Amino acid sequence: MKAIVNVALKQGVLDDQGKATHHALDTLGFKEVVKDVRIGKQIILELNATSQTQAREEVTNMCEKLLANTVIEDYTIEIIG
Amino acid sequence: MKAIVNVALKQGVLDDQGKATHHALDTLGFKEVVKDVRIGKQIILELNATSQTQAREEVTNMCEKLLANTVIEDYTIEIIG
Repeated sequence: MKAIVNVALKQGVLDDQGKATHHALDTLGFKEVVKDVRIGKQIILELNATSQTQAREEVTNMCEKLLANTVIEDYTIEIIG
Repeated sequence: MKAIVNVALKQGVLDDQGKATHHALDTLGFKEVVKDVRIGKQIILELNATSQTQAREEVTNMCEKLLANTVIEDYTIEIIG
């Protein structure tokens, strides 16, 4: 079973990496096209799990304990297979 | 219009960050559950574009020029709205 976890900064939290990327895209000639850039992490996990429910529970646990900093980040979990 | 770009290391390229995260999850008690971890970037772009086709073209251009290192990374583009 596979889990895809997307971790992104919460709305309102300054996204330095996104700002820098936005600036770089502006200077590369995409100024007219790009309005905003935000950058997050995508974590892809291969799991040993007997059910989707168990997989989701385990991955939620991992997010709370390690994968996301829930003070400033939100996460979404997608279970495949 | 919105674009979601996922950038991940190609198969076969050593994923240090993934390896470290895997190890950390093992020590946190998820040894039985986690088989593999890979970590990539998710870039969310707000765009001024007149069509999905134009948006995809522009974002492909951005990926080739800045967002991905195509020697070691693959990217996927999803256009929304």
